[in-house]
Amino acid sequence: MRRLLAPRHIAVFGGASAAEAVRQCRAIGFTGAIWPVHPRRETIEGLPCQRSVAALPEAPDAALLALPNEATVPVVAELAAHGAGGAVCYAAGFAEEGAEGARLQGRLRDAADGMPVIGPNCIGVLNYLDGSALWADQHGGTRVQSGVALITQSGNIAQNLTMQRRSVPLAYVITAGNGAVTGVPELIEGVLDDPRVTAIGLHLEGIDDVRGFARAALTALSRGVPLVAVKTGSSELGARANLSHTSSLAGSDVLWDALFRRLGIARVHETGTLLETLKFLHVHGSLDGKRITSASCSGGEAALMADVAQRHGAELPELPEGVTTRLRTVLGERVHVTNPLDYHTYIWGDAEAQRACFTALLDSGFDVNLLLLDLPRNDRCAPQHWTTTWEAYAAAARETGAPACVVSSLPEGLPEETGSRLLAQGVAPMHGMADCVRAVAAAHTIGVARRRHLDEPVLSPDGPATVRVGARVRSSHPHGSYEQPEQPEQRGPLDEFAAKQALAGHGLRVPRGGVTRQGPDRAPDEAARLAAELGFPVVVKALSHTLAHKTEAGGVRVGLTDEAAVRDAVRAMAPLADRFLVEELVPGAVAELIVGVHRDPQFGHALTIGAGGVLVEVVRDTATLLLPARRSEIVSALGSLRIRPLLEGFRGAPPGDTAAAVEAVRAIARYAHQDSVAEVDVNPLLVLPDGEGAVAVDALVRREAYEPGTAQ
Amino acid sequence: MRRLLAPRHIAVFGGASAAEAVRQCRAIGFTGAIWPVHPRRETIEGLPCQRSVAALPEAPDAALLALPNEATVPVVAELAAHGAGGAVCYAAGFAEEGAEGARLQGRLRDAADGMPVIGPNCIGVLNYLDGSALWADQHGGTRVQSGVALITQSGNIAQNLTMQRRSVPLAYVITAGNGAVTGVPELIEGVLDDPRVTAIGLHLEGIDDVRGFARAALTALSRGVPLVAVKTGSSELGARANLSHTSSLAGSDVLWDALFRRLGIARVHETGTLLETLKFLHVHGSLDGKRITSASCSGGEAALMADVAQRHGAELPELPEGVTTRLRTVLGERVHVTNPLDYHTYIWGDAEAQRACFTALLDSGFDVNLLLLDLPRNDRCAPQHWTTTWEAYAAAARETGAPACVVSSLPEGLPEETGSRLLAQGVAPMHGMADCVRAVAAAHTIGVARRRHLDEPVLSPDGPATVRVGARVRSSHPHGSYEQPEQPEQRGPLDEFAAKQALAGHGLRVPRGGVTRQGPDRAPDEAARLAAELGFPVVVKALSHTLAHKTEAGGVRVGLTDEAAVRDAVRAMAPLADRFLVEELVPGAVAELIVGVHRDPQFGHALTIGAGGVLVEVVRDTATLLLPARRSEIVSALGSLRIRPLLEGFRGAPPGDTAAAVEAVRAIARYAHQDSVAEVDVNPLLVLPDGEGAVAVDALVRREAYEPGTAQ
Repeated sequence: MRRLLAPRHIAVFGGASAAEAVRQCRAIGFTGAIWPVHPRRETIEGLPCQRSVAALPEAPDAALLALPNEATVPVVAELAAHGAGGAVCYAAGFAEEGAEGARLQGRLRDAADGMPVIGPNCIGVLNYLDGSALWADQHGGTRVQSGVALITQSGNIAQNLTMQRRSVPLAYVITAGNGAVTGVPELIEGVLDDPRVTAIGLHLEGIDDVRGFARAALTALSRGVPLVAVKTGSSELGARANLSHTSSLAGSDVLWDALFRRLGIARVHETGTLLETLKFLHVHGSLDGKRITSASCSGGEAALMADVAQRHGAELPELPEGVTTRLRTVLGERVHVTNPLDYHTYIWGDAEAQRACFTALLDSGFDVNLLLLDLPRNDRCAPQHWTTTWEAYAAAARETGAPACVVSSLPEGLPEETGSRLLAQGVAPMHGMADCVRAVAAAHTIGVARRRHLDEPVLSPDGPATVRVGARVRSSHPHGSYEQPEQPEQRGPLDEFAAKQALAGHGLRVPRGGVTRQGPDRAPDEAARLAAELGFPVVVKALSHTLAHKTEAGGVRVGLTDEAAVRDAVRAMAPLADRFLVEELVPGAVAELIVGVHRDPQFGHALTIGAGGVLVEVVRDTATLLLPARRSEIVSALGSLRIRPLLEGFRGAPPGDTAAAVEAVRAIARYAHQDSVAEVDVNPLLVLPDGEGAVAVDALVRREAYEPGTAQ
Repeated sequence: MRRLLAPRHIAVFGGASAAEAVRQCRAIGFTGAIWPVHPRRETIEGLPCQRSVAALPEAPDAALLALPNEATVPVVAELAAHGAGGAVCYAAGFAEEGAEGARLQGRLRDAADGMPVIGPNCIGVLNYLDGSALWADQHGGTRVQSGVALITQSGNIAQNLTMQRRSVPLAYVITAGNGAVTGVPELIEGVLDDPRVTAIGLHLEGIDDVRGFARAALTALSRGVPLVAVKTGSSELGARANLSHTSSLAGSDVLWDALFRRLGIARVHETGTLLETLKFLHVHGSLDGKRITSASCSGGEAALMADVAQRHGAELPELPEGVTTRLRTVLGERVHVTNPLDYHTYIWGDAEAQRACFTALLDSGFDVNLLLLDLPRNDRCAPQHWTTTWEAYAAAARETGAPACVVSSLPEGLPEETGSRLLAQGVAPMHGMADCVRAVAAAHTIGVARRRHLDEPVLSPDGPATVRVGARVRSSHPHGSYEQPEQPEQRGPLDEFAAKQALAGHGLRVPRGGVTRQGPDRAPDEAARLAAELGFPVVVKALSHTLAHKTEAGGVRVGLTDEAAVRDAVRAMAPLADRFLVEELVPGAVAELIVGVHRDPQFGHALTIGAGGVLVEVVRDTATLLLPARRSEIVSALGSLRIRPLLEGFRGAPPGDTAAAVEAVRAIARYAHQDSVAEVDVNPLLVLPDGEGAVAVDALVRREAYEPGTAQ
């Protein structure tokens, strides 16, 4: 892959687009040999054409194929056979155009025979570090010493991003196209091998290989190279059986969020935010905290920053007392010293006073420091006092070594030339307050994930797996794995009793109870006897694996206090089922949770924890994790729910047994995390007062053979 | 006010800043007379100085006072006495600097004696229509024929906004400063008088005069001049009694939202979004719908737009069949025609084909049409094919007359000169997909509010009022008013029975019930007798106006089924109260609401409707309106709750009596909307099945004399 990304020599195939690539290589300062290959032309851009791959002086490190789709395939095969380093395939007309194109793409994959191939249906690869442009179109970047890598699944988005005028140092720009041979995971690993890459930005429309993606992302996390992603196309995956609550609560976009959170990838929603976040990470890396100072000469901007910080998740703590004292000395009595700081205009244009002010502020020891400053239009105004200000701030940053940013409220308030000068001094030039704070929050998200990962390694999610059902489950993940004999085969939904038994076998507590076994005529008496053995009050439920919404159907009677009531209940439910579950009533819950797992064709099993009860879809208070999940992730998910106060002891009620709830969730996850389990839904899981445990009073399990790559 | 905003002659007072104002007037092309006034200097910027106001040739239409704070006051008095049109006071050192400054500001107000005065503590006023600059600093704008007005409470924010490079036509820029004499409401009315003003942008930190602000905003709404606001400083107002749930659910920022919604003001959160929204409104005005078409030559951008539209509230409906057919003809079989449209690059550079494509798309009849296009860097690339594209789009817009925008994903992707050319052709040049969609959503919000206002006029909120408590309530609002004799005076919280009686007197249904009256010894028997009269089951509650959280204190027993149980309950509650409320049990509710009103010192009475029950703070599913509220607003608020499905009939349960719920809310609002009522909290209001009504089973009322301008 290094040969392809940083080639010593390049072969170009095709006509006008190949010529464009030659021009782009020269413009970017490529110093190696360029070998055009064309069946008829004598020269391209003044370079002599070879007639075939075989005629080249040696196997090229990289080749740009600007050929029609059909013609691309044999050339790839020839390059692979001759030991080329890799190829970029420009042509469209592959898998994006239906079944026939997909077959052609399969032939392309075969032709590559292990050689890296970028595309097809892409613009190519720009290397702004070493100067190579396997890129048959215009672009807007220039050479850099170090910088960020962009990997996109859209050529046009990549091309637009190269046109930025906001001092983002682009090291690599790679358009993955269809990713027929070399996908986003391999491209991430490719740029990770270059130590000059400071951060990686992704534009994703979809990922086939969740496991490979996770592996590459965890490599980046381990090495401390931050990843930021724009993920588009949040529409739902195709048809999906909708028996359980949780499968409808955890749509695919929620699963992407869960995946990104797990892997320490910061998600952003606009390309401008992507660039700002990458620029911030390039200068300051990931963060352990998100405490900021903010300085501006305007109370209006200070208030705006306070709101923006709160809205996008940064903290503006009070300044340390020593800093406050120093600032009072510099700024005088008329300035109220606080954070965000409005330092007023009394020291406007006074470089020394400004430097003293900013040095004091930057000594706060916070995670990031921001100077809010919009430069005036230099075509209509004279910006010298503004220049004094940002120069004083940059000087204070040098003096204190504190992480510093200059932030304009409008992007055009910080021109490219000023941005580049700030960048050269280690100050991040940030465009837009909200995007700056989003970048701080993203850097913090990544920093927290990285620290946690170093403490306790992230468990890589499964993605699609191919395990025969009925055999022993092969554990295919390195951490948190377990081996578990499969239950005797049963497909489709289990009845409630069977579901509870299965879950209880993995450590979940369920109510004591029993099932009538002697047919409809004797069921009332048998149920009454079971109830008497359990002790009153009891719950009676009609038992049927086809009855999904028992309560609505009249199949549940709660709080029966004597045998006669049990008999009556069973008789009344006779039309619904032949068998009946009799259970102890579990009183005194402080909270009701829903805990569900569903198997997603792309992400594998996903665990959803939320506020339970009948109103689950109305309340929609849930958190979703991918399996396997670390205990700490389950604790965090539970803590993120709006109903957390109930678990902590709400309005005089006792606190809940959160530890037992976490263990119950883990038991459910252990059971559910089998390829043969399509979905599990425990609702409610009753959380009893602290020390008394957690009990699953209703459970639904559906088992289906897993067919990789198909929606369930 | 017109004299001040569009002066024929200007007097300037002061030294360097006055000279700057003279230079800025000349630069902007001011053609009237400029009269410097200075006690000693002979000339300022070549103009002869007068020694005093009295020495001026006539009373100036406008004066810029760049004088120290103390010196400003007598000059304002002199100007007012001589019949000047108005003054701008540049000096700081007034109310923003504490008590002494506030006294000086009071003297300034007196000195003005009815003459408009902008400031103090402001930069001034720019009129880019007629060319006047009462502005003692640099700015970035140029003359326009028509455009948007900006009114800000921060000078620095206004100055930065003038530096924009995004083709926003600025007509007026007014910095209100402290607004000592002329506040934001009067400034809104001032620019509304100029028919060349197409929209008004506000930056607000706070408003003293909510009624005046509402009056000005409703004038704008009636005239069809859209208002957009950035409101900062969303921290809570000072101390506030916190007896009720709703006062903690409706913080001041929620009340600002309620005010803006009521008045048809679109709220945005960044200054960049403010500019984009104003630019959109300038070109296209407010909208009746938010259906958009989107076109780009990239599937990646189309997907991004689909996500952004969903995220920020625009609709991308399927294209009409006729349009689809035409597009298929132009684009060929390889292009999948849908909305958002990826028209691919097959017609890239082909002006005629692009024009045919865009004309077909713009014939969809949707509310707005967007072309996604980032221009390449013109310092490094050749943009001719991009130019062809936006010119084809502009031609299609002219041909169809459909509202059109060209949208760049990065602000720098649409340079100022291209933006201006688009603007001249009636196409809105929009910077950033998200801000563009936010602008569309804002224009729709305003359009909907305007249409509703024309159907049924908005009720102006009260804001602070000064009404003697105990007297008859003076109705001070034009619509929905009522006159109501005050209840006999009682301050502080009422007990539950008194609260319910008071509310029932205004039409709220409460459970049948009665209160024990014969002292603690005989209370058990008396309660049992009341229960027998009502019929079982009953509810018994301890009655005390000091017992706010009855349930937690053990002061509520529900579902008592015989007299003995009632006696036991009363005996057990004896430590809590002397009197007991016995009520019928109301079964069968399909939903529980909380309905509360609290009196805010700034906004008057605010009504909060939400999901009720004990978990109200946990669930936080609420909507807040200012009183008086139209019935339609209450219906909308109820419909905006997450628990709406319960009212519509959830999972086999019957639908709720929503009409009765709305009437119950109106009854509560009628009662609560008295100056002497500090808060009302009905929780729960039980919504029974359709046709059976809605019943308030618990209620809290606190009455306090109203002291205007103080936190409660």
